[in-house]
Amino acid sequence: MHDKSISGFSKKSKEQKAAWLATHFLEDSVGESVQTLTQFWLRDRSLQETLDGFSENTISNFPMPYGIAPNFLINGQMYAVPMVTEESSVVAAAASAAKFWLPLGGFHTKVVGTVKLGQIHFKWKGTEERWKTLFPALCEKLILEATHLSANMAKRGGGISAIKYFRNPAISEDYYQIRVRFETCDSMGANFINSILEQFAATLKQWANTAPELKETERSLDIIMAILSNYTPECVVKTWVSCSLKAMEATLKTRDDVRHFARKFETAVHVAIHDPYRAVTHNKGIFNGIDSVVLATGNDFRAIEACGHAYAARDGQYRSLSKCSIENDQFYFELEMPLAIGTVGGLTNLHPLAKLSLDILQNPTAEELMQVIAATGLAQNFGALRSLVTTGIQAGHMKMHLQNILNHLGANTEQKKEAATYFANKPVSFSSVRQFLGIEE
Amino acid sequence: MHDKSISGFSKKSKEQKAAWLATHFLEDSVGESVQTLTQFWLRDRSLQETLDGFSENTISNFPMPYGIAPNFLINGQMYAVPMVTEESSVVAAAASAAKFWLPLGGFHTKVVGTVKLGQIHFKWKGTEERWKTLFPALCEKLILEATHLSANMAKRGGGISAIKYFRNPAISEDYYQIRVRFETCDSMGANFINSILEQFAATLKQWANTAPELKETERSLDIIMAILSNYTPECVVKTWVSCSLKAMEATLKTRDDVRHFARKFETAVHVAIHDPYRAVTHNKGIFNGIDSVVLATGNDFRAIEACGHAYAARDGQYRSLSKCSIENDQFYFELEMPLAIGTVGGLTNLHPLAKLSLDILQNPTAEELMQVIAATGLAQNFGALRSLVTTGIQAGHMKMHLQNILNHLGANTEQKKEAATYFANKPVSFSSVRQFLGIEE
Repeated sequence: MHDKSISGFSKKSKEQKAAWLATHFLEDSVGESVQTLTQFWLRDRSLQETLDGFSENTISNFPMPYGIAPNFLINGQMYAVPMVTEESSVVAAAASAAKFWLPLGGFHTKVVGTVKLGQIHFKWKGTEERWKTLFPALCEKLILEATHLSANMAKRGGGISAIKYFRNPAISEDYYQIRVRFETCDSMGANFINSILEQFAATLKQWANTAPELKETERSLDIIMAILSNYTPECVVKTWVSCSLKAMEATLKTRDDVRHFARKFETAVHVAIHDPYRAVTHNKGIFNGIDSVVLATGNDFRAIEACGHAYAARDGQYRSLSKCSIENDQFYFELEMPLAIGTVGGLTNLHPLAKLSLDILQNPTAEELMQVIAATGLAQNFGALRSLVTTGIQAGHMKMHLQNILNHLGANTEQKKEAATYFANKPVSFSSVRQFLGIEE
Repeated sequence: MHDKSISGFSKKSKEQKAAWLATHFLEDSVGESVQTLTQFWLRDRSLQETLDGFSENTISNFPMPYGIAPNFLINGQMYAVPMVTEESSVVAAAASAAKFWLPLGGFHTKVVGTVKLGQIHFKWKGTEERWKTLFPALCEKLILEATHLSANMAKRGGGISAIKYFRNPAISEDYYQIRVRFETCDSMGANFINSILEQFAATLKQWANTAPELKETERSLDIIMAILSNYTPECVVKTWVSCSLKAMEATLKTRDDVRHFARKFETAVHVAIHDPYRAVTHNKGIFNGIDSVVLATGNDFRAIEACGHAYAARDGQYRSLSKCSIENDQFYFELEMPLAIGTVGGLTNLHPLAKLSLDILQNPTAEELMQVIAATGLAQNFGALRSLVTTGIQAGHMKMHLQNILNHLGANTEQKKEAATYFANKPVSFSSVRQFLGIEE
């Protein structure tokens, strides 16, 4: 039908996939593009196979910079935080904020809750009154028939902690939802929760078909879907830093007045609380830090992002996740957000660098990792706001961007030095740097 | 002060950084952890230096699977979509949805807008009436003094398109904001926008100090910050698929009734529109697809995530980004979301695989890339919902997770076959697979 369509792509070898791509989409007869792909393959074939197995149709590894932000003092314990990010200035800002707060007592944290959630959505034609009567015995049956799936988690102290039902006429008159609360110990719990929920759905369907207490008119029950909810507003961690303005002045190392700095910082946070246009960028900065550690430890940043931003909009307006106050000359800066992550299961042990990240973090429990991630998010936010309300962020950004372009274009040390001077007050772009180096487009 | 704190970490060599980490956080005297880090270093030293330059304190590359979802028909053109994700089933779901829609006309897309935004936040003690009078001349001055920064973008057809001011007494009585609209052509525009805004802020400050039209009492103007907004509700793309139920039936290849399937699918989307607990997971699935392409093309997924989720909450409740309808036996499924991305600047040309991704996508303009990314998000959503309302997602997930664990534990082909049978109805975990293989913990 289409000469660029293909059947059985997934069954081809990596080499064949790359070759097909080169022929059909890259007009590359000399194999240059295949070379671009293969240069990232690992020498260790078995390790490469492990990585390939994480996803599908893999033809290479996309390398992301793996860096370290040292000097994090969190609840009195020192950490070096592993971060994976492709964005410049993120690790530098986190590291600089960590160092700033080190002599000021560091980061304090508290896990507010660890409840995970799952949902079964279905349609049922019976009345709610009848449902209320039937529900308690059904719950027992649901739990009983999932015992083989929950036994191991129960041994570790977790499992199903509550089952509730909901209706929502906005969806439809016959829409019902069973919402399940879970504790999943040190695992993020997605596989555990989904296995339980699918078992629940099977039990529910079978119950509707066979339960003697149901009238024939009540047997029509249509399962829509059963899956965990990534919205976990009760799996929340709080982190804060605090110090007197006097102590801050000693650490600040600027000629700026500390009170003026602190007030501007506070205003910057207030703007992000009240203006959604600013809040999005403000929280994006927090997630620069959060996601870097989430990625480095083999957790799922899409889950963390979706939940965190929905949480930021929970009162009907999208707002800053952090807040700030100055009272009696005491500066206080706090971040509270949901973080459903794990330190066992998933990729945490399968990806060699995720495993190493957990080693670097002293093999934390899930609750401990929540706290480290949150502290990194707060540090990131502090670092970004500190730059924003003082020097601005462009000077630093453009300096790094210039270096990246110079590296890419193969500039030597002398040229780099000259470029730094030349571009101090000029716009940096690929073409302007090329022009400076005398390279033709 | 703390024996695990350090000064000058960023100035150490990679080898020194790794060694410090091993000594202070890994109790690793034999260098095993350093070996874990160095095995991912590239043989090509100059390329490795380029990657190291993207971020700070880098000690290794974190490899993410780079895969291909072929068979995407978008606006009549075939694409093979490069995707970077560590999550299993994501590429498979996108590829399967692309193949599903290929004979049904594929994906249709439309760019609704491309406006980018920036803000200057400041405090000023004058009255709004006076500000209104002063503002037009000030705007001219702002634009004039930024000409050296905007000239190149203007040549390419972009630049500053409007300047407005806002107040917000909830922040404070003297809070003012200048909001600037930009067109940034094929670049995401962060550097361009931030450079302009910081220049605006400098002009504004100088104007307050020196403009003859100001009274002395009006000279007090305090810049809080100047930075782009990642919230871009006018930089939006729409994508949709549509077909008759009859045509769908021929493609569906299931014994399920097509009408029942389509209605369940539609209900699943409606649930995500009305129930935030479901909406978060639903949109998370969309971003599984979106972020994979964003990452593969060297764009910034934190910016895309923050904006997309805030957009999902724009009417005061967090809702699904996609919608679905069945009218006159015609199935229609749509995704509309903001996507501020670029195909020039940033890492798009600096990361060799980001550059290759753009080559694979036929070197798209930013608008074309918006459309490919959105189509991938819709495909992802379709694939996930299709599984959810039919077989559930666990069977597939657990099969892949089992393979990952077996690979990691070095199982041979025979053991893998036996394990597949054995675990068909049993919970898969590291310890259960270890036990099955007779490996001691």
